[in-house]
Amino acid sequence: MNQLRRDPVTGRWVIIVMNELDIDKLVAGNPREKFNHTNCQFCEGQESKTPNEIMAVRDNGSRKDGPEWRIRVIPDKEPVLQIYGDINSRGVGMYDVIDGIGAHEIVIETPRHNETWVDLSESQIAEILEVFQKRIIDLKKDERFRYILVHKNYGEEVGATARHSYSFIIGSPITPKRVKDELMNAWQHYNYKERCLFCDIIHQEIRDKERLIIDDGTFIAFSPFASRRPFEAWILPRRHETFFEQSKDIKPLASVIKQMIYKIHKCLKEPDYYLEIHSGPNLIAGKRRGYWQTLVKDYHWHIEIMPRLKSYTSMETGSGFPINSVPPEEAAKILRSTI
Amino acid sequence: MNQLRRDPVTGRWVIIVMNELDIDKLVAGNPREKFNHTNCQFCEGQESKTPNEIMAVRDNGSRKDGPEWRIRVIPDKEPVLQIYGDINSRGVGMYDVIDGIGAHEIVIETPRHNETWVDLSESQIAEILEVFQKRIIDLKKDERFRYILVHKNYGEEVGATARHSYSFIIGSPITPKRVKDELMNAWQHYNYKERCLFCDIIHQEIRDKERLIIDDGTFIAFSPFASRRPFEAWILPRRHETFFEQSKDIKPLASVIKQMIYKIHKCLKEPDYYLEIHSGPNLIAGKRRGYWQTLVKDYHWHIEIMPRLKSYTSMETGSGFPINSVPPEEAAKILRSTI
Repeated sequence: MNQLRRDPVTGRWVIIVMNELDIDKLVAGNPREKFNHTNCQFCEGQESKTPNEIMAVRDNGSRKDGPEWRIRVIPDKEPVLQIYGDINSRGVGMYDVIDGIGAHEIVIETPRHNETWVDLSESQIAEILEVFQKRIIDLKKDERFRYILVHKNYGEEVGATARHSYSFIIGSPITPKRVKDELMNAWQHYNYKERCLFCDIIHQEIRDKERLIIDDGTFIAFSPFASRRPFEAWILPRRHETFFEQSKDIKPLASVIKQMIYKIHKCLKEPDYYLEIHSGPNLIAGKRRGYWQTLVKDYHWHIEIMPRLKSYTSMETGSGFPINSVPPEEAAKILRSTI
Repeated sequence: MNQLRRDPVTGRWVIIVMNELDIDKLVAGNPREKFNHTNCQFCEGQESKTPNEIMAVRDNGSRKDGPEWRIRVIPDKEPVLQIYGDINSRGVGMYDVIDGIGAHEIVIETPRHNETWVDLSESQIAEILEVFQKRIIDLKKDERFRYILVHKNYGEEVGATARHSYSFIIGSPITPKRVKDELMNAWQHYNYKERCLFCDIIHQEIRDKERLIIDDGTFIAFSPFASRRPFEAWILPRRHETFFEQSKDIKPLASVIKQMIYKIHKCLKEPDYYLEIHSGPNLIAGKRRGYWQTLVKDYHWHIEIMPRLKSYTSMETGSGFPINSVPPEEAAKILRSTI
């Protein structure tokens, strides 16, 4: 019998199909074609093709916007949100509009083309995570930005640059609905239980064990109970912390991320994947309205990783229920044993 | 300057890109390949390949599960939700689960392959809409089903049957989050304004005119202010009505739908599209909890149509903001003038 499971973090229900797993069918088509890197603007030596860098992790003695860097952060060449101006929040008749203001940055995570997080060392991944932290802290000084989004869409093409490892950082003038839902559910849970929702999830997963993938004492990685997609995985700090950018545990985090990416890479034949950092919102921007302050202390930052395998089915589109053909207990078992 | 616009129905913010429209780029790849109909189980004469019909609109004298029908409703051969059993709602540790119970029906809308809603007459479309109404009314007698979803995913393949015109009807044991959000926003709007949110939208669109596509006095069709996708269109009854299945205006509705599908078909080169009926939830199932009764009277049924053009961008995935490259005012202008 299939199950409908509720994700306590988003309130979303997911249909979990309890059929036997046919992993070959699931990973058919992987690994996908590698694109060649002619004219990749993100490669070392091509710095003049990108906008001027916002920051970089560079070798000693190298100069801004020249070669010899390990990580570069640049503004998007064609940002959908523009950095200068006021958000100009207003009503248009009964509707609400704000101007398309925001930061839209690209983190080029390595100077070398076709190098993925599987190839990078733990210390290189730690350096990338520290760059994320610095950019979030910097962007949060801007009170126009209510939320800073950090995500990586591995395998997706940006401009002519496919397969060069990069992430997006977006400073957004509104808090996305998805984030609001998480904050609200965490707050409601705290109001009712006087405990953090995510801390409760951590306890449950450590006790149940069947969805647990990694537990190193500082972080756990697991297949969430209401996984939307086969082999979805979340990484949570075991200690209650609201903001990713304030974490001091970047080294163990880099290790857990690398292990997880490796496991997904190996057992699903190098799939495209999506990685997203969920941190608390910008309190400076929220100050004007105040209510995030009370909501936010019960939030718990985490990372969500989602391999992109088979295409969506129609029922999903129509019903609003994702349909996941691999029970998370099964996915966790496979990922645990992938070494 | 691009805009962030808020959809008052869902609370979702959308980025509207105010660039000049390049419609050729947008419809590149359309019309898509027509599949051949060898072995299409939905075609007339292939009735033995499908499960027994639940209902049908048949010519006089024709027999159940034989040929000579105009519309057939059958259960899905491989439903993800099964019809027999109790929903068995329960906790699993801190999590919530119910059994995968539900109705999953397919409405075969024509006996002929490759015939689309553009080819069908208004009276044939009206007959299809009446079948939707009958199935919703029937499924709402089942108190396990909190919500009945009706949607059409034109161009999507189901089984070996591509391009045969069909829709899905799903009886769901939970109200999808998307529907809850709509009910909640409509309720909050009523509480604040003492007016129906959708009636307010109708007034605004009739007055503004720039997003209006059709107004026949009974229904309006328009490009919603915060359209998620290029050429998204909604159809609303001008009179306040909560339930689609109680509408007496099926003839004018069929006419407006046919006009809209034709306009989209013609100006976007026969795109795939998605059509969804948003009606009030099942009050019989809700009775146990009661609160829908108060929420529901302020809801206003409507139809959403979404052409599927270019693929999603990564920012969208990450930010939770859909990015729409065609301002709805522009889309409406083009659709209005497509005849």
